[in-house]
Amino acid sequence: MKHFIPILLLSLSTLSCVTTVTPEQKKMPKNIIMVIGDGMGPAFTTAYRYYSDNPKTEEIEETVFDRHLKGSSSTYPAPISGVVTDSAASATALATGIKSYNGAIGVDVNKKSVQTVLEWAKLQGKATGVVVTSQINHATPASYLTHNESRQNYNTIADSYIDNGIKSDLYFGGGWKYFIRKDRNIVNEFKQAGFHYLDDYQGLENLPVNKPVLGLFANSGLPWALDDTNKYRLSTMTKAATTHLSQYQKSTTGKGFFMLIEGSQIDWAGHVNDISSAMSEMDDFAKTLEYLEDFVERNPDTLVIVTADHSTGGLTIGAKGKYAWQPEKLRSMKHSPTYIAKQLIKQKVTPELVEQLFNFELPDDDIALLIQNKHDKIITNNTHISKLRNVSNVEFSLTLTVKRIIDKYTNTGWTSGGHTAIDVPVFAFGKQSNLFNGHQDNTDIAKKIFSLLGK
Amino acid sequence: MKHFIPILLLSLSTLSCVTTVTPEQKKMPKNIIMVIGDGMGPAFTTAYRYYSDNPKTEEIEETVFDRHLKGSSSTYPAPISGVVTDSAASATALATGIKSYNGAIGVDVNKKSVQTVLEWAKLQGKATGVVVTSQINHATPASYLTHNESRQNYNTIADSYIDNGIKSDLYFGGGWKYFIRKDRNIVNEFKQAGFHYLDDYQGLENLPVNKPVLGLFANSGLPWALDDTNKYRLSTMTKAATTHLSQYQKSTTGKGFFMLIEGSQIDWAGHVNDISSAMSEMDDFAKTLEYLEDFVERNPDTLVIVTADHSTGGLTIGAKGKYAWQPEKLRSMKHSPTYIAKQLIKQKVTPELVEQLFNFELPDDDIALLIQNKHDKIITNNTHISKLRNVSNVEFSLTLTVKRIIDKYTNTGWTSGGHTAIDVPVFAFGKQSNLFNGHQDNTDIAKKIFSLLGK
Repeated sequence: MKHFIPILLLSLSTLSCVTTVTPEQKKMPKNIIMVIGDGMGPAFTTAYRYYSDNPKTEEIEETVFDRHLKGSSSTYPAPISGVVTDSAASATALATGIKSYNGAIGVDVNKKSVQTVLEWAKLQGKATGVVVTSQINHATPASYLTHNESRQNYNTIADSYIDNGIKSDLYFGGGWKYFIRKDRNIVNEFKQAGFHYLDDYQGLENLPVNKPVLGLFANSGLPWALDDTNKYRLSTMTKAATTHLSQYQKSTTGKGFFMLIEGSQIDWAGHVNDISSAMSEMDDFAKTLEYLEDFVERNPDTLVIVTADHSTGGLTIGAKGKYAWQPEKLRSMKHSPTYIAKQLIKQKVTPELVEQLFNFELPDDDIALLIQNKHDKIITNNTHISKLRNVSNVEFSLTLTVKRIIDKYTNTGWTSGGHTAIDVPVFAFGKQSNLFNGHQDNTDIAKKIFSLLGK
Repeated sequence: MKHFIPILLLSLSTLSCVTTVTPEQKKMPKNIIMVIGDGMGPAFTTAYRYYSDNPKTEEIEETVFDRHLKGSSSTYPAPISGVVTDSAASATALATGIKSYNGAIGVDVNKKSVQTVLEWAKLQGKATGVVVTSQINHATPASYLTHNESRQNYNTIADSYIDNGIKSDLYFGGGWKYFIRKDRNIVNEFKQAGFHYLDDYQGLENLPVNKPVLGLFANSGLPWALDDTNKYRLSTMTKAATTHLSQYQKSTTGKGFFMLIEGSQIDWAGHVNDISSAMSEMDDFAKTLEYLEDFVERNPDTLVIVTADHSTGGLTIGAKGKYAWQPEKLRSMKHSPTYIAKQLIKQKVTPELVEQLFNFELPDDDIALLIQNKHDKIITNNTHISKLRNVSNVEFSLTLTVKRIIDKYTNTGWTSGGHTAIDVPVFAFGKQSNLFNGHQDNTDIAKKIFSLLGK
């Protein structure tokens, strides 16, 4: 009998008064914040513990990930794409609850649009927001915001953010080249639709309370955390976004908000096998979660779910038969390998310059290798991120050498410029976070969120 | 006030009658089964889902691991050994609750003996047992059974199984060369101490109910699952062991049992980067867990905890930028690469022989490579398992080629012949299994078991 009581109560309350809060509704968090570490497989969250450890203490400190681990998630796409997913298929699974093919943006295997949790949340009267470090029309945010047969259709996806109806009240990330084009100025169209527009991080401090906002801070993706003017730009954007959406929902429906946050460039660091950028992107991501812990403490009617869409690069913590992983040198680095390579090309390579760029001393043979590499101009195949970032062959080659030197000192392993199929960790805290205990499929995460949004 | 009630009840019952079952005792499982997949990092449990998938159905079937995932565990050893553990330090952590140096068997960083959960369980009157696919004096079982400054002291460790007092009522695994030596026949000493001895799997069917048992089935470790006369030898030994210990404890103290089970060779397959052996060892391990599910259903007063001590080989599910992992060919394999290489040396290499050995067809260029390799006799460095198995250079080289061919067809990645520091999954089912929810350190697992054993 026990199991029938909630249904009975639900029926009675429905009969008596539509505005009564049902027991089911009481269980639903007012705010739901979905946080994706793109490419953040279990090797990344584990490595971050050793990277962020305080060397002055004997013990290894617990991370924000350790505090909130709930389980794991499988990530495989629809059978047509095998078992290794891309970011589009997995974001579609996390956003809609269905498996699709690699490349699919919010559509099923028949290329038919499927409603996303963000769209459904908006229909329920919640404020919505998207905060990413990629361009805002990149695979993950696009899979929550729109529907397209291919993630590569960047302009069409950008167009759809207006043409298919505005789905979000807040967008923070990069993307000038897609939103301010010769053929169409979508930023202006957002302004005409009542949006406040900002294009630098300073603007995050003064957002108008009653207006939806669009913040684009770079041409495409934001700079690497290591090279950005604000190394904690995801945390900064998240703080501004949660504050703004909390006020905005109050001034409109009062029904809370749904937000997607993505640490997009953990994946990009994985693609180019760059452990120093991977760890600094993880640091920004972890600081974002620590801020959200604080937000949930102040707003206990909030659920935060954190996961990855897949793991990238085949990162391993240790390699080549050596029982060691030594992140010490990573902790002091102040520039990405990309930046270091650019400077090595521009300037005369001396031991002083090298030490200044790496922020640790290199032995003569490593310096000789960098000098040789600068003049060799070896032609190598660029991976998709290098192509995206449009770098010369000598820069690509030097960046590679810088990364291999860092791998040598840290004893980091990589097997791929692409993704792997390993299950990813699931973290959650706040209201109803125990729903995410144990192993689940990525589609189950969307299904649970839909259920918490009353669908 | 609520929190004081159990303590109050505990105090009252202690005062009134020492034999009363306290609420604390009621929470304790009668039987505890600790299961370790040596080297079984998250890439192994995930890969197993795709390996064991039924290709005749559209969906990907859930595994026994998916059903029981509870959380994860960090594996780092004492600071002196960095962050990448060996099997001795991690087994010592899991057995005693303290961090030690790599190589330590049940001793702390000062080489002082620390009580293990198995020793404590025995003192509490429980029957005890150890079932492994390595030699029974290998690092993991030794860390539960004895104390030694180095895992390498195999003979001393074997001696200690008698000399330091017999700690276990049941031992199944390999190890003739350590237990039947010129200088000492420890098997005879066990017999004199009242043990029933068996040296083949058939003997598992007729164990005498009231006697402790020692079963040694190989000179050192058991053969690879793929090559053994019984491909499910861990499951078979486990079934016999749980049945025997259930009866044995009843005929002695009636206080249940503590058991250690180890799938030892998942790690060995990782060390030699052999995906076909890794998956067949995982298959035997998974079948063992499925049997234990059944045992717990019949004996609900039992807790099963399953984890790994670390991950081995830097295995990645996908590699080289290709978004694929294709385990199809692994499913039909009937011999290990070691066996295949031996046969290729013994016999004339023809397409028919190759197809018969691999159990799938190979193209001409792969067959040509095998023939070339057979006659090249390339000298390569053997890793520690190859040394252990005492193979010739040509056999080692051919085995390597066989493995690289299988890696190519499956798109499997490896970065190391050693271990990596990635967190490992924790699974549990049965009584009090929720105690293992979330992230924990490997030492916490021992602490929780000690607590469930009343310490």
